[in-house]
Amino acid sequence: MPSEFALIRRHFTRPARHTDLAVGDDAALIRPAPGMQLAISTDMLVAGTHFFADTNPTDLGWKTLAVNVSDLAAMGAQPRWVVLAASLPGADEAWIEAFAGGFFACCEAFDIDAIGGDTTRGPLNLCPTIFGEVPTGAAITRSGAKPGDDLWVSGAPGRAALGLAHLRGETHLADTYRDDCLAALHRPQPRVALGLGLRGIASAMLDVSDGLLGDLDHILECSGVGAVIDEANLPLAPLVAACGDPARAFAACTGGGDDYELLFTAPPTQRAALADLSARLALPLHRIGSITPATRGLHLRDTSGTLRELAARGYDHFGNGA
Amino acid sequence: MPSEFALIRRHFTRPARHTDLAVGDDAALIRPAPGMQLAISTDMLVAGTHFFADTNPTDLGWKTLAVNVSDLAAMGAQPRWVVLAASLPGADEAWIEAFAGGFFACCEAFDIDAIGGDTTRGPLNLCPTIFGEVPTGAAITRSGAKPGDDLWVSGAPGRAALGLAHLRGETHLADTYRDDCLAALHRPQPRVALGLGLRGIASAMLDVSDGLLGDLDHILECSGVGAVIDEANLPLAPLVAACGDPARAFAACTGGGDDYELLFTAPPTQRAALADLSARLALPLHRIGSITPATRGLHLRDTSGTLRELAARGYDHFGNGA
Repeated sequence: MPSEFALIRRHFTRPARHTDLAVGDDAALIRPAPGMQLAISTDMLVAGTHFFADTNPTDLGWKTLAVNVSDLAAMGAQPRWVVLAASLPGADEAWIEAFAGGFFACCEAFDIDAIGGDTTRGPLNLCPTIFGEVPTGAAITRSGAKPGDDLWVSGAPGRAALGLAHLRGETHLADTYRDDCLAALHRPQPRVALGLGLRGIASAMLDVSDGLLGDLDHILECSGVGAVIDEANLPLAPLVAACGDPARAFAACTGGGDDYELLFTAPPTQRAALADLSARLALPLHRIGSITPATRGLHLRDTSGTLRELAARGYDHFGNGA
Repeated sequence: MPSEFALIRRHFTRPARHTDLAVGDDAALIRPAPGMQLAISTDMLVAGTHFFADTNPTDLGWKTLAVNVSDLAAMGAQPRWVVLAASLPGADEAWIEAFAGGFFACCEAFDIDAIGGDTTRGPLNLCPTIFGEVPTGAAITRSGAKPGDDLWVSGAPGRAALGLAHLRGETHLADTYRDDCLAALHRPQPRVALGLGLRGIASAMLDVSDGLLGDLDHILECSGVGAVIDEANLPLAPLVAACGDPARAFAACTGGGDDYELLFTAPPTQRAALADLSARLALPLHRIGSITPATRGLHLRDTSGTLRELAARGYDHFGNGA
């Protein structure tokens, strides 16, 4: 069996482009550009909790990095470097090669240097930590939303949840939508360009990883505000077309995670800038509601105009886990 | 059961001292000082592979961070920030509180800000990623050793291995040494002050985590050199006194990991500086050998003066794992 060091060298050492010292020493060395803050995020993906152990390893490699890239996109940061710690049940070299293929495809797609890591034996567990740059003071946090701001979401949140429901046999997706929903689940596209474009425009932002309503609740809590969501403006139509079930489409859009769309707030004065940005990126941006004072809580205005109070429903690994 | 977010808030949110934005957003924000490189290292500790699941959680919290701190010490970097991803089998709050106690004790001891993380459900797995600062160009890598350099090791490597052998019932340690060996195993003291003091003195360095000979092999390979170790200069005496077995003491000193002492090379012109540093830190530094051309390989000069070729014996999680 090849050694740990040989496996790392063979599959995880690629030329680094903006790194002083990469894989192979006690630590990697990087230099953020002057005037930049370093944005840092870590994620842990566990077999059986976040993915099935038999997931296609190339998809898994992509997604392992993509979900981490999304955290930086949600700050308006430019991803630059990543380290990957991994616990593997055995040294299945074909699996490792396929996983590395997906992981480095994501590195290439977002110009990220893989600069180090740790490999060990144990239950399958993947832990990337990512670093990016953002001009000092320009990061978009969760705490800047103000009453009167618009609430926006990118793309078509809910497709990944429908893809998962399809795989589980809980629904059957129409042929013309199926591949799109499965791609959203297996190969999420973190919204890096959108995050960068929203610097100076968005007042608060995060990525939708646990479900739109649950993640929105983090913005409301961090910013000390409330919100009203307009059901009529939620991008439900393609989801209904895909699964033929309005209730499932609504649940997928508001409660499904794993699409890694960006949820953000911006003053109404930014609407024209956002229309321009949407056109430039060829990415739909949906104005789904507005920010209110905290005392108003979180409400949904349904298609008849009736206001209904909502409870947050994000996935909580200890609180709500099965 | 308290939620994931509540657990994190309760046990893992402490005031940060040199951080722009810590726990609670999509990413943390830091600013390395001008003229500094950022040194980054990640480690993954898995129950059953790196520690017993019933290890005292306070000790485990300390060690989880300490082994990572040691990687920065081995670069001559000043540790500053850490993120921790953790997979836990359940939300045992007493365990989490005790673990956090040890982890933050180590943060305090080395003035490190815990700036973020991720908590999820799954087999027990702890993955810290640490960041530190080193003046650009001053990091001490594995690749700078030159023929003619002295080879040095700090402290008393092998104590942790003896402590482990004692716990396993493989040896019985004398009362006066036992606590010291168990402390080396459970509460390793990363040599940060030594690493900083060796800037401009050491030509190559790493920390002994997998065993002195195996780790030395990394320096030899990265630097393209060989080495001769003088058995007479190895700090064996306290190990022999502890376990009463010269062969076990030799094996612990040269093959035992987990002490996190620093192994480094330096030109002979630095001997006086090293004596001063050793006195200032009240830390023994042992000149255990010398660096040779690569063609000479790795040899041990035994106490009779005979040269014997050695094979590297570092612990390899896939190559040599049980």
